[in-house]
Amino acid sequence: MPRKMHFAQYLMHGPTYHSLAMWRHPRTDRSYDWRRPELYQHIAQVCERGKLDMVFFADFNYIFDAYQGAPDAALRYAAQTPMHDPIPLLSWMAAATSRIGLASTLAVSQLHPFYVARLFGTLDHLTRGRVGWNVVTFANRHETVKGYEEPAQHDARYDRAEEFLDVCGKLWQCWEDDALQADADSGVFADPAKIHRIDHDGRFYRSRGPLHVTPSPQRRPVIIQAGASGRGRDFAARHAEAIFAIQPFVEGAASYYADIKSRMVALGRRHQDCKILFGVQLFVAETESAARDKLALHNSLVPLEGAVAHLSGALDTDLSRMPLDTIMQPFEATRSQGVVDMYTRVAGKSLTLRDMALRHGRSVGFPQIVGTPEQVVDQLEAYYERAGGDGFMLTMAYAPGAIEEFVSLVVPVLQKRGRLRTEYRGETLRQILGEDD
Amino acid sequence: MPRKMHFAQYLMHGPTYHSLAMWRHPRTDRSYDWRRPELYQHIAQVCERGKLDMVFFADFNYIFDAYQGAPDAALRYAAQTPMHDPIPLLSWMAAATSRIGLASTLAVSQLHPFYVARLFGTLDHLTRGRVGWNVVTFANRHETVKGYEEPAQHDARYDRAEEFLDVCGKLWQCWEDDALQADADSGVFADPAKIHRIDHDGRFYRSRGPLHVTPSPQRRPVIIQAGASGRGRDFAARHAEAIFAIQPFVEGAASYYADIKSRMVALGRRHQDCKILFGVQLFVAETESAARDKLALHNSLVPLEGAVAHLSGALDTDLSRMPLDTIMQPFEATRSQGVVDMYTRVAGKSLTLRDMALRHGRSVGFPQIVGTPEQVVDQLEAYYERAGGDGFMLTMAYAPGAIEEFVSLVVPVLQKRGRLRTEYRGETLRQILGEDD
Repeated sequence: MPRKMHFAQYLMHGPTYHSLAMWRHPRTDRSYDWRRPELYQHIAQVCERGKLDMVFFADFNYIFDAYQGAPDAALRYAAQTPMHDPIPLLSWMAAATSRIGLASTLAVSQLHPFYVARLFGTLDHLTRGRVGWNVVTFANRHETVKGYEEPAQHDARYDRAEEFLDVCGKLWQCWEDDALQADADSGVFADPAKIHRIDHDGRFYRSRGPLHVTPSPQRRPVIIQAGASGRGRDFAARHAEAIFAIQPFVEGAASYYADIKSRMVALGRRHQDCKILFGVQLFVAETESAARDKLALHNSLVPLEGAVAHLSGALDTDLSRMPLDTIMQPFEATRSQGVVDMYTRVAGKSLTLRDMALRHGRSVGFPQIVGTPEQVVDQLEAYYERAGGDGFMLTMAYAPGAIEEFVSLVVPVLQKRGRLRTEYRGETLRQILGEDD
Repeated sequence: MPRKMHFAQYLMHGPTYHSLAMWRHPRTDRSYDWRRPELYQHIAQVCERGKLDMVFFADFNYIFDAYQGAPDAALRYAAQTPMHDPIPLLSWMAAATSRIGLASTLAVSQLHPFYVARLFGTLDHLTRGRVGWNVVTFANRHETVKGYEEPAQHDARYDRAEEFLDVCGKLWQCWEDDALQADADSGVFADPAKIHRIDHDGRFYRSRGPLHVTPSPQRRPVIIQAGASGRGRDFAARHAEAIFAIQPFVEGAASYYADIKSRMVALGRRHQDCKILFGVQLFVAETESAARDKLALHNSLVPLEGAVAHLSGALDTDLSRMPLDTIMQPFEATRSQGVVDMYTRVAGKSLTLRDMALRHGRSVGFPQIVGTPEQVVDQLEAYYERAGGDGFMLTMAYAPGAIEEFVSLVVPVLQKRGRLRTEYRGETLRQILGEDD
């Protein structure tokens, strides 16, 4: 029997995800407002009908401003901006569904472990064990509490994140399984001998506990991560139960996958304890030519200036004065090397600033996969077999049509080929991610 | 025409509110689990049917531990413990209702204004302008980030809270009304010339902005406060649009009301810009004797040791070694004087530790109002006229029966006497609080 794939739907609480064309695309349904909960409830229901593992919110609490040193272009072109808080949407989506997992990013910067442990413990109760947390180590460095500034060093951020997760883990274990008694006759609500303080006193945090959240169905949320650096990969290999990765070419995906799994094994974890999901942007239609037309229309709607501004954010460099015909070479800038190298290898040749920016504005490095439902599944299977991945994270070129088409056109083909569940068996997100191991 | 009253339903995301008997009371419906959203969705729907202004969550992120220097008694007797995070419930309740206001406490301690401004801006969008925020200045002092400890001084906490609200206020004003254009044809999503940084650099916080939340229906949540100290009263008089106050006797309520309103006027605000709601715990039945039986049954279920532990928390003093027959006098302890004085004045005589603790365990100082629907409304009207209040905050002795009875028995009488709206007119919580000014 073929190995089953895991799928997640990538979301942001904003007008655009990875495509700068998304908010203005003619297939984006204007009867939905991205600021209202109905869109997300509908998406969650569609994804549950398609038996996806989970919906997943990314989150940035900053606005890209490398381009011209200002947020203006990001705002004008809606380059992953604005972005409302996704956490309140999880409850709304949970109220409209019963099985699908519900995950969100929350940055550990500027929060305390007690607050985050309590929030996710509560959400795990309310969703009956369907919640996941994407742990991000940094956030908006311009929004700071004096005395509690962001560590400047990348590694120090990970040291802090390790301690943050360590404290959360202890807090989620404060209550023994049978501490809660709720015996109305005797009047004993809980047995305090089975509820423990943690008395943590570390480098970054003090936490006494106990957490005043009773043990939740999963005890702790499913931990998700997306580390790319060496330190980030170690962090992910140690903690993550699902990883979301952008790898625009399959060789990169294969090498990333092998690296993470070997780090996991070195840390004593099993290969299957973390599912690696690679991002894909699908264009599907009944005929190949209709699918290619869809792709062409979408790509034509990406605004060039917005794309250059967006790439400036990714490279952390102001590209506004660089001629558009400049051949892009890795240069001295944070994050530049990997991004430029990635696009160059995908294209198989050097790219001009214009071409690289437009690729970035279309899908931020997600492979664009195009064709009939059968052709799309062929390509997903080929990527999956060669990369060794565990499944895919879907992004949308227009909303909510892209996920509706995936579920109505692609899901039946996946199920026919035995690549996707036809029913959920697990009750919690952790169990659903572990199905078919 | 008689002046209309405003009503709010007080909630906690836990098994007990102000009555230590609540979780074990035979009328508390065991088919609901306080850890599940269905209870709160039901309560919100009942309150909306009764045309209350709002539901309101209190929140403590600590466990009382003055008694025997340990949290054991609070846990054993469920003394406002455990308490899950109430914020995720607001979304769930909003999904089940359309008009009623939805408010929660969130402590400014250990959070950054940008995070809180974004959260409430998002909630205001999602609820279509129905959200309120009860600003609390302190939280769990045992859960700290190193370098960002709680100010030890009461006044310094208010200085910080003032700056916190100031930054939030600026962030909620970053976007001009017409900045969002979302013009798919031209490709202009927003006009960056109408979106502004705030560049705040204060004593406690740095914040650059802009907030990446578009202007929400209310622009800012309704601000709620419950300050009791002089500094707290000034803070409330400056910022609050609703105040929740516990005043067990009407003279205290009248004096509190007059003091807040005169502080408001001195600060240039109008008398009606803030609604003061006094807490009440109702026992209502078709006959007076049935109502008195309800009260007696409820009060008999308060456990004495739990009550002493709970009073120890309120007085911040370990009362575990004090004989139960000790006549209570104000003594040297934080918060002691006001609490002891309050109960003594209500009783009209000195109280023993036993009697004072039991009063505290029954309702934490909320007046217990007992009778037929007509008698209860008579008493509410008398309190209202003498105290000069704007309305009431209801707490429950058992859940959800207490609010169901209020809506089915008391609301029709209030409406018949012209004391309560029969339909909502305002769209937002701010408008609903301002109806009938």
